[in-house]
Amino acid sequence: MNTHTDILERLEQTIAARRAASPDSSYVAKLNAKGLPKIAQKLGEEATEAVIAALSGSNEELVGESADLLFHLLVLLSAKGVSLEHVLAELERREGQSGLEEKAGRSE
Amino acid sequence: MNTHTDILERLEQTIAARRAASPDSSYVAKLNAKGLPKIAQKLGEEATEAVIAALSGSNEELVGESADLLFHLLVLLSAKGVSLEHVLAELERREGQSGLEEKAGRSE
Amino acid sequence: MNTHTDILERLEQTIAARRAASPDSSYVAKLNAKGLPKIAQKLGEEATEAVIAALSGSNEELVGESADLLFHLLVLLSAKGVSLEHVLAELERREGQSGLEEKAGRSE
Amino acid sequence: MNTHTDILERLEQTIAARRAASPDSSYVAKLNAKGLPKIAQKLGEEATEAVIAALSGSNEELVGESADLLFHLLVLLSAKGVSLEHVLAELERREGQSGLEEKAGRSE
Repeated sequence: MNTHTDILERLEQTIAARRAASPDSSYVAKLNAKGLPKIAQKLGEEATEAVIAALSGSNEELVGESADLLFHLLVLLSAKGVSLEHVLAELERREGQSGLEEKAGRSE
Repeated sequence: MNTHTDILERLEQTIAARRAASPDSSYVAKLNAKGLPKIAQKLGEEATEAVIAALSGSNEELVGESADLLFHLLVLLSAKGVSLEHVLAELERREGQSGLEEKAGRSE
Repeated sequence: MNTHTDILERLEQTIAARRAASPDSSYVAKLNAKGLPKIAQKLGEEATEAVIAALSGSNEELVGESADLLFHLLVLLSAKGVSLEHVLAELERREGQSGLEEKAGRSE
Repeated sequence: MNTHTDILERLEQTIAARRAASPDSSYVAKLNAKGLPKIAQKLGEEATEAVIAALSGSNEELVGESADLLFHLLVLLSAKGVSLEHVLAELERREGQSGLEEKAGRSE
């Protein structure tokens, strides 16, 4: 079975592996060689492009920019030694809380 | 088993359900009531905060900002009627290509 | 006398003139030919770069990114038919109000 | 005569003066008390809002967001000890070069 996070987990592993590759053979290695500020800049740029695709582009463009954004988020997390699992656990924790808030809101 | 996929897909479903809720009882409904530009703005803000956390904050802050970024990306995709599956499929498609490029690069 | 806004006013006029030029001979014309979303994207990118220069770069880099940001703000305003004078008048109006608030704050 | 320069330079001076004020009485002092990352974040947020106003808002909104962007750029420069004059000199230097390029482009 090929679930969603399969691709995210696989991508996370691929990115980790490529960080050690030669900057000549890998985009991820090249980006890491340029340093954290450059990686962070790419994340900011992709977010701006997603914003603009959402407001002025096609859904196809939004899909492409969202994929770019997710990819560069994974590159940034990898460069900082933070696992996607940690981020998803935080989302899950909040969803639990938010579910409670939501119920509280509904019961009012 | 609770895969990472489950978390993102469940969050996507929760967001879809909340869009129909009362703006008084749900953050997602309130954001949607404000319109797409406001949702896009939140995505841009969260990306800026992730950039800053990566450069000047703790890993704990980066985790929190990355969770915010993912959450608001899902809210934006939902507001545009784009499924997460579509974005992940695009990432998978690229990974396939990129794997080939990577091999080509290594063989040089 | 060569005052600050001289350069800003001159730059605003130069940008207005170049918008009508051939995209082959002018960066401003090329950017306008690509459309408003592309101009807005450039503004977002330059702001991200200014943020990163402020947090991780030299003052020299911050100067360069700030100049880029101002330049692309002028290109965006020009593309929307908004004059810098209008923006500066708004700043002046706020400064007047803020001056009063500042005094009120001090007198407490 | 009140040139545009006067407005920006006066604002720069006002911001410099307010940095030393009590955070309770001044927005600028409060922002500086929060530290550089927070100031940089505000710049990023205002740029996102200007992008969105340009694509989805009225010209009046773009004026307001552009004023916010300029204001927070001045706050950031002040916090880094970089003068507006330095940035404007850089713009002037580039305009000189660009004028030459423009001419070169036209003569082709």
